[in-house]
Amino acid sequence: MKIARIVADGRVRTVTVRGEALVGPGGEQYDPETVTWLVPFEPRSVIGLALNYAAHADELGLARPEAPALFFKPLSALVGHRAPVIYPREATHCHYETELAVVVGRPARRVRAGEALDYVLGYTVANDFTCRDFVTNTFRPPVKAKGFDTFGPLGPYLVTRDEIEDPGRLAVRTWVNGTLRQEGTTAHLVHSVGEIIEYLSAFMTLEPYDVILTGTPKGIAPVRPGDVMTCEVEGVGRLENPVVAESETV
Amino acid sequence: MKIARIVADGRVRTVTVRGEALVGPGGEQYDPETVTWLVPFEPRSVIGLALNYAAHADELGLARPEAPALFFKPLSALVGHRAPVIYPREATHCHYETELAVVVGRPARRVRAGEALDYVLGYTVANDFTCRDFVTNTFRPPVKAKGFDTFGPLGPYLVTRDEIEDPGRLAVRTWVNGTLRQEGTTAHLVHSVGEIIEYLSAFMTLEPYDVILTGTPKGIAPVRPGDVMTCEVEGVGRLENPVVAESETV
Repeated sequence: MKIARIVADGRVRTVTVRGEALVGPGGEQYDPETVTWLVPFEPRSVIGLALNYAAHADELGLARPEAPALFFKPLSALVGHRAPVIYPREATHCHYETELAVVVGRPARRVRAGEALDYVLGYTVANDFTCRDFVTNTFRPPVKAKGFDTFGPLGPYLVTRDEIEDPGRLAVRTWVNGTLRQEGTTAHLVHSVGEIIEYLSAFMTLEPYDVILTGTPKGIAPVRPGDVMTCEVEGVGRLENPVVAESETV
Repeated sequence: MKIARIVADGRVRTVTVRGEALVGPGGEQYDPETVTWLVPFEPRSVIGLALNYAAHADELGLARPEAPALFFKPLSALVGHRAPVIYPREATHCHYETELAVVVGRPARRVRAGEALDYVLGYTVANDFTCRDFVTNTFRPPVKAKGFDTFGPLGPYLVTRDEIEDPGRLAVRTWVNGTLRQEGTTAHLVHSVGEIIEYLSAFMTLEPYDVILTGTPKGIAPVRPGDVMTCEVEGVGRLENPVVAESETV
């Protein structure tokens, strides 16, 4: 099942996605072009992995970490499909990071990789938007560079686990203004979805609606205000967000 | 006002603290020695600062960061007053970090340091418990080392802002088994409470019940299972937690 949260007719509504249609519980349909798309559920927290594709670590000129390199993305950064990502006034070098996002479905503690997918509610697409301008010290991954309001598009919808046979075999692609700029596959994850859940749940309890961002493949490229980013994970969805300049008057 | 959340007679209750007494809304009293103390509110997220006292950076042999060095503490780490902190089987070097914790009271974005305290609901005491064993790579501050379940005692209660004339003039002290081991003052914060709120709210929206851990002074020392940590911030409270060995059988 594909589940979206939208605002239509002045209300937040949870709907299912059937083909191109958004269908409410009474069978009523909503136009995907005119509704406002929200993050498809209420995330409890968002845990990210840096450098979880070897070729991406190489393109950044950074060492490949042995253990997962973890960070948290602020909840205030999250926005839904089609919401603008605000390019900060003081920024000069910002890029998308398209990622498979895993949504936890039930409390997980000391879970083995082989059973980890039983704890997954489903998947969605994340754009772990990052401005390298704000990597101002040796503390990495940098909270500020990844933590501005709007730097966390998530969606367009939640795809329940049963629809994804193997989260380790999904193509990951990004287009900027319609031009393909990034292409990878979750087959190249350094730490697989199951291994990440095993690693995290070995020290902390994962709770429902915790979200895990699994890292981005090689192929990041700068974007500028006016660009449109389209982030796709095969079978999980295609998340589109425009980059908009921060108003000089705010 | 001092506000605690306790479990008594099978229910979660919000009570006020008057001297040594815990008083419910109908005037009923609860025995502070027999109730279970919870984290005094439901935190939305917990943002920490590493190395926010120069002398503490020096004692760790680490460079003093120019900008605040930020991290998030997982919500699953939080426990209340008197709850056990579980010393992991595989750990050998863990220590308390007593800190003034600031609780956000209303949405804050682009707030100046001079007005920042208007956005504060109140204060509590945090023990940012850390095991240095898990600093396994160059990624700092390390989520795992600070993120085990129970590594985030918070409490015993929330002290509303009006009771603290100046959060920049509070003594910070830690006792281990009754022996004073750490003594500092928030007057030595590298980034003051107001400056931290200005820094954070310049890029992200702070929301009610976001918690800011302001860093620990010089004077950390290892603790072991069987030890009792008493963490005090002057006027804000005294948070006590025993260190307990992780059972071999879990």
